[in-house]
Amino acid sequence: MKADKDNLNICYIGGGSRNWAWTLFGDLAREKDIGGVVRLFDVDPAAAEANRAIGQRLMDARNPGRWRFETAPDLARGLAGADFVFASILPGDFDKMAVDVHAPERYGVYQSVGDTVGPGGLMRALRTVPMYQAIARAVRDHAPDAWVFNYTNPMAVCVRALYREFPGIKAFGCCHEVFHTQTLLARTAEAAGLAPAKKLGRRDIKTRVAGINHFTWIDKASYRGADLVPIYRDFVAAHPDGVEDADHAWRRDPFKFAELVKFDLFKRFGLIAAAGDRHLAEFCPPAWYLDTPAAVKRWKFRLTTVDFRIAKREKLKELSRSYASGDALMKTAESGEEGLAIMKALLGLGDLATNVNLPNRGQMPDLPLGAVVETNALFARDRIDPMVTDGLPPAVRALVLPHAANQEGIVAAAFARDLAAAERTFGADPLLSRMAPADVRALFADMAARTLDPADGYSRKS
Amino acid sequence: MKADKDNLNICYIGGGSRNWAWTLFGDLAREKDIGGVVRLFDVDPAAAEANRAIGQRLMDARNPGRWRFETAPDLARGLAGADFVFASILPGDFDKMAVDVHAPERYGVYQSVGDTVGPGGLMRALRTVPMYQAIARAVRDHAPDAWVFNYTNPMAVCVRALYREFPGIKAFGCCHEVFHTQTLLARTAEAAGLAPAKKLGRRDIKTRVAGINHFTWIDKASYRGADLVPIYRDFVAAHPDGVEDADHAWRRDPFKFAELVKFDLFKRFGLIAAAGDRHLAEFCPPAWYLDTPAAVKRWKFRLTTVDFRIAKREKLKELSRSYASGDALMKTAESGEEGLAIMKALLGLGDLATNVNLPNRGQMPDLPLGAVVETNALFARDRIDPMVTDGLPPAVRALVLPHAANQEGIVAAAFARDLAAAERTFGADPLLSRMAPADVRALFADMAARTLDPADGYSRKS
Amino acid sequence: MKADKDNLNICYIGGGSRNWAWTLFGDLAREKDIGGVVRLFDVDPAAAEANRAIGQRLMDARNPGRWRFETAPDLARGLAGADFVFASILPGDFDKMAVDVHAPERYGVYQSVGDTVGPGGLMRALRTVPMYQAIARAVRDHAPDAWVFNYTNPMAVCVRALYREFPGIKAFGCCHEVFHTQTLLARTAEAAGLAPAKKLGRRDIKTRVAGINHFTWIDKASYRGADLVPIYRDFVAAHPDGVEDADHAWRRDPFKFAELVKFDLFKRFGLIAAAGDRHLAEFCPPAWYLDTPAAVKRWKFRLTTVDFRIAKREKLKELSRSYASGDALMKTAESGEEGLAIMKALLGLGDLATNVNLPNRGQMPDLPLGAVVETNALFARDRIDPMVTDGLPPAVRALVLPHAANQEGIVAAAFARDLAAAERTFGADPLLSRMAPADVRALFADMAARTLDPADGYSRKS
Amino acid sequence: MKADKDNLNICYIGGGSRNWAWTLFGDLAREKDIGGVVRLFDVDPAAAEANRAIGQRLMDARNPGRWRFETAPDLARGLAGADFVFASILPGDFDKMAVDVHAPERYGVYQSVGDTVGPGGLMRALRTVPMYQAIARAVRDHAPDAWVFNYTNPMAVCVRALYREFPGIKAFGCCHEVFHTQTLLARTAEAAGLAPAKKLGRRDIKTRVAGINHFTWIDKASYRGADLVPIYRDFVAAHPDGVEDADHAWRRDPFKFAELVKFDLFKRFGLIAAAGDRHLAEFCPPAWYLDTPAAVKRWKFRLTTVDFRIAKREKLKELSRSYASGDALMKTAESGEEGLAIMKALLGLGDLATNVNLPNRGQMPDLPLGAVVETNALFARDRIDPMVTDGLPPAVRALVLPHAANQEGIVAAAFARDLAAAERTFGADPLLSRMAPADVRALFADMAARTLDPADGYSRKS
Repeated sequence: MKADKDNLNICYIGGGSRNWAWTLFGDLAREKDIGGVVRLFDVDPAAAEANRAIGQRLMDARNPGRWRFETAPDLARGLAGADFVFASILPGDFDKMAVDVHAPERYGVYQSVGDTVGPGGLMRALRTVPMYQAIARAVRDHAPDAWVFNYTNPMAVCVRALYREFPGIKAFGCCHEVFHTQTLLARTAEAAGLAPAKKLGRRDIKTRVAGINHFTWIDKASYRGADLVPIYRDFVAAHPDGVEDADHAWRRDPFKFAELVKFDLFKRFGLIAAAGDRHLAEFCPPAWYLDTPAAVKRWKFRLTTVDFRIAKREKLKELSRSYASGDALMKTAESGEEGLAIMKALLGLGDLATNVNLPNRGQMPDLPLGAVVETNALFARDRIDPMVTDGLPPAVRALVLPHAANQEGIVAAAFARDLAAAERTFGADPLLSRMAPADVRALFADMAARTLDPADGYSRKS
Repeated sequence: MKADKDNLNICYIGGGSRNWAWTLFGDLAREKDIGGVVRLFDVDPAAAEANRAIGQRLMDARNPGRWRFETAPDLARGLAGADFVFASILPGDFDKMAVDVHAPERYGVYQSVGDTVGPGGLMRALRTVPMYQAIARAVRDHAPDAWVFNYTNPMAVCVRALYREFPGIKAFGCCHEVFHTQTLLARTAEAAGLAPAKKLGRRDIKTRVAGINHFTWIDKASYRGADLVPIYRDFVAAHPDGVEDADHAWRRDPFKFAELVKFDLFKRFGLIAAAGDRHLAEFCPPAWYLDTPAAVKRWKFRLTTVDFRIAKREKLKELSRSYASGDALMKTAESGEEGLAIMKALLGLGDLATNVNLPNRGQMPDLPLGAVVETNALFARDRIDPMVTDGLPPAVRALVLPHAANQEGIVAAAFARDLAAAERTFGADPLLSRMAPADVRALFADMAARTLDPADGYSRKS
Repeated sequence: MKADKDNLNICYIGGGSRNWAWTLFGDLAREKDIGGVVRLFDVDPAAAEANRAIGQRLMDARNPGRWRFETAPDLARGLAGADFVFASILPGDFDKMAVDVHAPERYGVYQSVGDTVGPGGLMRALRTVPMYQAIARAVRDHAPDAWVFNYTNPMAVCVRALYREFPGIKAFGCCHEVFHTQTLLARTAEAAGLAPAKKLGRRDIKTRVAGINHFTWIDKASYRGADLVPIYRDFVAAHPDGVEDADHAWRRDPFKFAELVKFDLFKRFGLIAAAGDRHLAEFCPPAWYLDTPAAVKRWKFRLTTVDFRIAKREKLKELSRSYASGDALMKTAESGEEGLAIMKALLGLGDLATNVNLPNRGQMPDLPLGAVVETNALFARDRIDPMVTDGLPPAVRALVLPHAANQEGIVAAAFARDLAAAERTFGADPLLSRMAPADVRALFADMAARTLDPADGYSRKS
Repeated sequence: MKADKDNLNICYIGGGSRNWAWTLFGDLAREKDIGGVVRLFDVDPAAAEANRAIGQRLMDARNPGRWRFETAPDLARGLAGADFVFASILPGDFDKMAVDVHAPERYGVYQSVGDTVGPGGLMRALRTVPMYQAIARAVRDHAPDAWVFNYTNPMAVCVRALYREFPGIKAFGCCHEVFHTQTLLARTAEAAGLAPAKKLGRRDIKTRVAGINHFTWIDKASYRGADLVPIYRDFVAAHPDGVEDADHAWRRDPFKFAELVKFDLFKRFGLIAAAGDRHLAEFCPPAWYLDTPAAVKRWKFRLTTVDFRIAKREKLKELSRSYASGDALMKTAESGEEGLAIMKALLGLGDLATNVNLPNRGQMPDLPLGAVVETNALFARDRIDPMVTDGLPPAVRALVLPHAANQEGIVAAAFARDLAAAERTFGADPLLSRMAPADVRALFADMAARTLDPADGYSRKS
């Protein structure tokens, strides 16, 4: 890696993003140690151009002279000479996501997110893999030595596809779900009186992470010399109704929840599940947390609706217009994300230990080599060294392993463009385990017809 | 191994058995190449003595001078100097088995066998492991070089426990469930006209076997030059109502079934499941085949009742009295089992390729090393060489892996005599995936209280 | 595999061969169960045409109507529709082989074969890999479902290159070195009086094989019920001067030897080395068996000269002319090779257990996955199932592992066409361990310049 | 782990040590964050008592009130309730070490250390294993939750023996050989002008470490944003005569060297060897660096003599008397060791990334699981998380793997107390690869007779 920290070359794929891209802009706006050019590529050029204007205006105001923003007319020119690549795309539009989330409901299958596992996640995987194969080839041809940050879901599938298409890629996946659990652990440490005079942040808490994205687990957690596992146990016991603010935020906001799923998993398995409840629920047998909409309410989380996402998007679009036109300056706050810190660590500006998604090279002894797993890793100059975990206890393994197998299965089916193989993996997803085989086939055919791009060339092959 | 084929020393643990032991007696009665002594040990000395008389009488009549039958007063004297050890025991009595099978029914959990996985299988495992630890220690001390044949269920747990207690043991597990599927394949070959003039036997069919006991799969099957997989596919399609004789034997006999579960698994996954339907069903999500007693009927197999087993035992006891007293000579037929052929192969009297249960040393690339798996192996003089499989396709792996994890979990919990760890694995069994956590705990506590032996020293430890 | 045993389609790459090809012809001439067409492709079309005439004449005389012989103008047309592919080529001419064998002698490095490991073997690997990449691509494009038999050395490198270029290939390597040791074991069994009235053949002896080609080991050997390992131990002790006929054949024929290397390895490690002494010697530290030409003589084997090979070739050429012209009919005898039996087993005409070279998928627990290893396997209809070995004892592993690493290294360097990487592996070969670094570099550069094909595009890259 | 940082319980096995123990005392003397009791156990009680007096006097003077020093009458009482255990013992006396080092010289085998691999290291392993089995059992019985620091050589063998005897042990090995190479890298960074105004310390250099103890390798090295690998390459090229001070310290001091071995290994393999030259040399073929005493001189390092060690010990004994009696206060300086920092990290007082010796659980993908390897790891509260490396390039693997196999072999032989198995591993050591088999046997027998303790019960068993 020949990066010059003052003349970095960053390519952002999905550069019209109003979520992860804005977060990155905000972090760059307060960063004094590095600089360079940010090139935005998006299949929607107008969105990329709006973000270019937003980013440049923000930088000119807050961090003048350090960063230049450009748009790229195509992937090749976006990537040419890149030191870092960010990928955060929406694989398909909201209409397709509506199919992912709602089509299975006819069969009594409910999803709280629908982008990772379950029928929605697997169908989304079939759309995403061809896109990620194209990205991997473009990186191979135009920026083979760049570090690639992935933010797109399904995370494990995206990262696996990148490595399968271009084994030499230096890609990894970033996700903030674990951070939330670290914050929760900070609350338990405070509740136990471990930091009388201090408001603890998530970075005060040390955790060891093991699992697969959105179904990660913490087996060791500490605050300084204190073991937080027994403290968490007491906290769970003391909060039979979960943790929520007075106005029950989860009732309004599908991204909120009261930790009841997390606490129940702890009671079952003695291990701290480390992702949002709405993600965790989708990996478990449907009777546990997603039995019916009413049951979901009792567990105090929400089924995501696409309507909600559309409304949110419209608000963000308005905001984007106002930022891009100069009516307002984008608001920024320290994001709590690790993207910028990781970039600096890879440049040699300070080592960083955090959790990350990478192909398993030995860090998860219980999962197959090559499967994309989430563990701690040390980021240092031009390297990421994942840390070997103790593995997962057998009962948790029994829950995690089928999803690792299914992720391998759906990626293999997508590379082969084989709907028959994809359907078999679809039928092995625990969320569908209550459906009759004929219904599984009908649902799969319906979702495939409505969400897959004919240009990708899927057909029944095996 | 210093065995002399004409003066072999066989120890039979569970020597009062009226099932596997009689099968072995029958096979020995027609065997001219080997001879020696058979020592029967049983916790019920009367049963052992009855079998001694039965065996000796049979031998004197049919194969005089080759075999001598004795009983052994204890395990140590039974094992002393043994070349071969057979273990087929009933871990606990029928009252305990009744709890295994019926206690979960209160919660809507139905089992067709209850001795391998599911609540019954896991509870039985907790009873069996201490017994098998004792056997392993006795083999280590009195017959460390003997080959140990296991016939007891839960097969994988028994074999795992033997190796965990005495890593140097030469043990393996024999099961005839695959044979039945070979016979079914012979029928499909005949139906396809491949052997116009011939009634095919199971040994005419060549299969490649991969999986775990009672949840084994066949990915390659042939009769001479013909690939039987597409032939099986057609056969399945041509038999939407399964395969049964005119009088629907499965309605009377819980050991019978119409292959509908097997055919459905083939339609789902494109792979030939190779065990009885009643076993296969227990490894799958409960909604598939064990949803309700009515559903079981529609799938044309039966829930085992202990009453049935008791009635069967009474009949066999009567038969035993008649055989032992000399009123009748035990009836024998070629058993179709491989026990005797394996013994001869291990003596160097002819190599044999068949399926067998062994710790995974590489033969099942998708399953953890050390887990007990069922694959083909070559038996030759003083060695068993398992054959490396191609592994299982991802969707099937997603079904098999949780059970491999649970088997590891229940063995670890049993070695630690830890009910808390055992309960966590219990709660991860797919058959219980529709129960509320509190019900899981109540069921576990109830079954443990009624079936575990206080002398084993189980308690909640972790 | 859709092969019709009476209309098989065999492609022979290196079809002008006067060694392996003639052996195959001879075996086909006595085979009544199968038939079809044999297509010969060779870079020397005249040699292919001569063999076509030889083969057809032989078949017409001995086995009329079963086999048709053709030549193929190119690889693509040779492979089109093939059921079986044989590959036995000479990678480079005898001039290049002379460099392989003799160039290192200037530095005191002596080789008894020079085609597997050591400076000669590694340089030959660099020539062979590009050829085998081309073969793999041609098989992928023209006969992806064919079974590919490799006979070319360096065996492990050739098979590895085929799989690395086309992971879906169904290739394996056949070698008869183990057979010779089985014959030696038959002699020991006779010497011990185990078969008083009988001349034993190698197939009477059962062995378990583990290792890498030409450095294979036998840890279990038996004749019926008798363990041959202690018998071999006694035999070795009783033959301190080795085993040779009265006229010391090894003095005249570089393919002969007196087993002294094999016996010495047994005395050192207690394990039966199972390849010709001249192969075994090259894998060991040079001081052991290849210290000087005089030492080689004391160990009673020979340094191969290329002169000898050239003389032998000339004799065979003459024979070829006489066979092709019709002056004489090719002489045949049962070859003792397994090629034909393997073909029949793969067609479903009878299972066969023998040793074979395949990528390690678990059969050699001590060697890296993917490395090409030699173990027993069961051949059956359209499948080869390798048997899991017990691995090698530590001291033997210490000898074998460096060569497995070097084979991986030389293949990787060859795929990258990187002379710098190749030189590093060259320098790690034990046979060169007495040379100064500067001499290693000079020798490597000299050999590369004189034997590598500029068209392959090798250069220093890393 | 229930340690209270102000009331720690440290047990020092080999507590009479004047090397590692004094280093620890010095570090404790300047540490204000932790305190407690240090219990010294030694087979030489007088040495322990002397150290007790030395330590207590030092603490009273420099760090009063924080640490109390005691001696322990036996291992059990030393370990009772320990939070941390240090083990640094001399396995056998200097007479035995003289045999280790000098006996092989009669056969032209020279050793520069003789305590890790080679004839001396392997013989020392046979003495050490029984002692470490006893330590492991004592830890299991008296301090099963303690963290055990090992400093004794042969490092890999000691750590392996601890885990093999008590798999639940929390042990690891600390070695400072890598630190020296980090210091050398700091020099190269300075020479390249990367830190114009600053004297760099080893902790300024970030390295990734992979290998086995004393044969470790660095594939990534950086100083802030700068890649040090190309800088090291230039440095090596610029120093054909190595790096030494004006008075050639290595001529007087066997612990000194001029880095020529290290530089030669870099030229051969392109990877930075990271241990002292005198250690590295012993892992390579004897012709490379240990051909003759004259060759060793040309490589600018020294053959260790035991005389030198005895002289050094006498000086230290005198110093000990003076410290213990109160004539002088022990001199201390910041040691540069990580022992204290590791202890604090394990107490939760700050995470630490450094290199460490641990059983391979996946961190070294190319080496067998269970083998003791040296890699980076993160130390945090009550956990050590090793970092997954990229493995070693093939040519380096070819050098490292035989030693990993031999270490496994010698440990297995030592556990079995089997001299025959030990001799086989002895004969596979590369340093002995020039000896005749009969000489190997004679040397082994001689060394075993003169250095092994009859009480350990070694005999020829296999």
